[in-house]
Amino acid sequence: MAITRLLDIGAMQQVIADVGLDRFMDEMIAKLTYAFRRFDPEATVTKVREGFSYEKPDLGLVEWMPTMDVGGRISIKTVGYHPTNPMQRNLPSVMATTSLHDTTTGQLLALADSTFLTAVRTGAASAVATDELAPLSTPILGIIGAGAQAITQAHAISRVRAIEKIIVFDADEDVAASFERRLPFAVEVEVVTAARVHKELPAMLGEADILCTCTSVDPEAGPVFADGRHKEALHINAVGADFPGKLEIPRTLINRAVVVPDYQPQCLAEGESQTLRAEQLGPDLHQLIAAGRHQYRGVLTVFDSTGWALEDLLAAELLLEHADRISAGHEIELQPSPRDPFDPYEQIRPAGHGLTQES
Amino acid sequence: MAITRLLDIGAMQQVIADVGLDRFMDEMIAKLTYAFRRFDPEATVTKVREGFSYEKPDLGLVEWMPTMDVGGRISIKTVGYHPTNPMQRNLPSVMATTSLHDTTTGQLLALADSTFLTAVRTGAASAVATDELAPLSTPILGIIGAGAQAITQAHAISRVRAIEKIIVFDADEDVAASFERRLPFAVEVEVVTAARVHKELPAMLGEADILCTCTSVDPEAGPVFADGRHKEALHINAVGADFPGKLEIPRTLINRAVVVPDYQPQCLAEGESQTLRAEQLGPDLHQLIAAGRHQYRGVLTVFDSTGWALEDLLAAELLLEHADRISAGHEIELQPSPRDPFDPYEQIRPAGHGLTQES
Repeated sequence: MAITRLLDIGAMQQVIADVGLDRFMDEMIAKLTYAFRRFDPEATVTKVREGFSYEKPDLGLVEWMPTMDVGGRISIKTVGYHPTNPMQRNLPSVMATTSLHDTTTGQLLALADSTFLTAVRTGAASAVATDELAPLSTPILGIIGAGAQAITQAHAISRVRAIEKIIVFDADEDVAASFERRLPFAVEVEVVTAARVHKELPAMLGEADILCTCTSVDPEAGPVFADGRHKEALHINAVGADFPGKLEIPRTLINRAVVVPDYQPQCLAEGESQTLRAEQLGPDLHQLIAAGRHQYRGVLTVFDSTGWALEDLLAAELLLEHADRISAGHEIELQPSPRDPFDPYEQIRPAGHGLTQES
Repeated sequence: MAITRLLDIGAMQQVIADVGLDRFMDEMIAKLTYAFRRFDPEATVTKVREGFSYEKPDLGLVEWMPTMDVGGRISIKTVGYHPTNPMQRNLPSVMATTSLHDTTTGQLLALADSTFLTAVRTGAASAVATDELAPLSTPILGIIGAGAQAITQAHAISRVRAIEKIIVFDADEDVAASFERRLPFAVEVEVVTAARVHKELPAMLGEADILCTCTSVDPEAGPVFADGRHKEALHINAVGADFPGKLEIPRTLINRAVVVPDYQPQCLAEGESQTLRAEQLGPDLHQLIAAGRHQYRGVLTVFDSTGWALEDLLAAELLLEHADRISAGHEIELQPSPRDPFDPYEQIRPAGHGLTQES
């Protein structure tokens, strides 16, 4: 039987009820770290994502992000980014699914929602970058853009660094105000209000040990904060830029920082690095993790997180491992497994009906 | 609720039990003809397929074929081609799924098996090409490669032309011998035996009004028949070539034929046209259908069918229309629709458990 595993919302609920959100995040961080350390582009082939983007009915895009574990599985995450979703349709701006395909047979092995997984792995990637690039003592976390991604940024970073206070800003005051309630852990939260943003945002930049930018700023409308005084060893996780023209970080700051891409060709095309040339970039994050020397702790660093397809393969695998262990999810016969593989009609033919009788 | 429709084998059985295989094929042919006639590349954006190919554990590939109806839906067919599947694993060599995505929200609307649909739409495309390019009287159909695709080639062509006899050859005698039993309609079938292939294959070429090549020949191992005497108005549906180096038709024959691509950039990259330059090709099939003049009936023609992503969108839509009408398929909550779209954990959080209790 050609069986496809479906990991729907219910399956994810079961996994998280069993594992716990904190441990799931910890395992995601550990899995990324391990995979980055041993990354071999001959063994794991990723492609720069491609997609369709459009401006009607609203600005949006659907992209596909394929990865192959050579001799193993292919994962394809299909991800939509529709920034008007939350306000206009009460849906997440990022909605995604990941499919896993067998490279022996071509069968679809599993399909999982990746809306939750994308948020988790994006947070986990920032945690790996933060652990590599930020000083060990980082009590103050600044966050610009308080939507869904902000929650997993804060959650993931709190698993690798002791955070004492989060200073958060969002262009939408309601979203900023609900940030603390949405956080899955207790921490002091200070909200930068729109009314005092001109004073408080520079103050946040000056105070922060770590800064995460994760906004839905429109292409050509950035940066989302003004350059200014900051700590010498500030580490920034630049999460929002993933589209030509979409930039969150001031160019003057980018130009004096060590910029660490998640996946260089993609960052040069659509990340914060899109105004830079390859020779202006630092090593990719996985190269730094493999080197294991934390060589940029102590200087201004920017992790250019465009979202790497390898992260999605790992996230889907983590979910699937737990789902398998506790038998969560559904199995359906989505694809045929006929007795005669040369008969495309065998399984479609209604039982007991010779087809010649139909015509 | 973010609901995804799943069209599995059972759903397709229900649709075919209701519609009948002949009518389903007729509707597929009509839908392709209509879409080709009004094709507007501004309104329907297709991409050349991309994928991963490999030689271990066996020769194979997984590709994705995206299409966008601007302002409507995006379909992505993910298709595996693993020619050792039938003999080694009793599975079809081509296994595929198609996903439909909403361009307003990015949600996954539906996922359907496309193993059956790929065979049907590939047959239907050859029927459209045959109707456009072949004379009206074509009693003899030759088929080289008697696997799953051969069945839908024969079936589809039988819906647009009165076929009196099929002459079939396969390198595997058992596959050739079972061809007639697998056909969904009654027709005289003559099998070219391996023992007499050197005599009978040239005779088939001489006798055929239409020839379909749909083999799994290895790259660089073609052509699958020798050039020779044939009818002046022979029409060939060249279905197998869809990979660099994979060619079924002798170059001398290709060079004197009017070659009609399904989708020119893809045919030049991986179809029978890969040894030709763009200026040596005839118009794309959809351009000929739009012109409506049957201008190449009566001369040697080759339809270079690599499989166009638009055909997959139309096939998935046809299936979905029928499934909707008779309420076939399953609905699952694969993707989240939280009350708060800015909370990535809301729906994953076990009911009744505050997350702070977990940590």
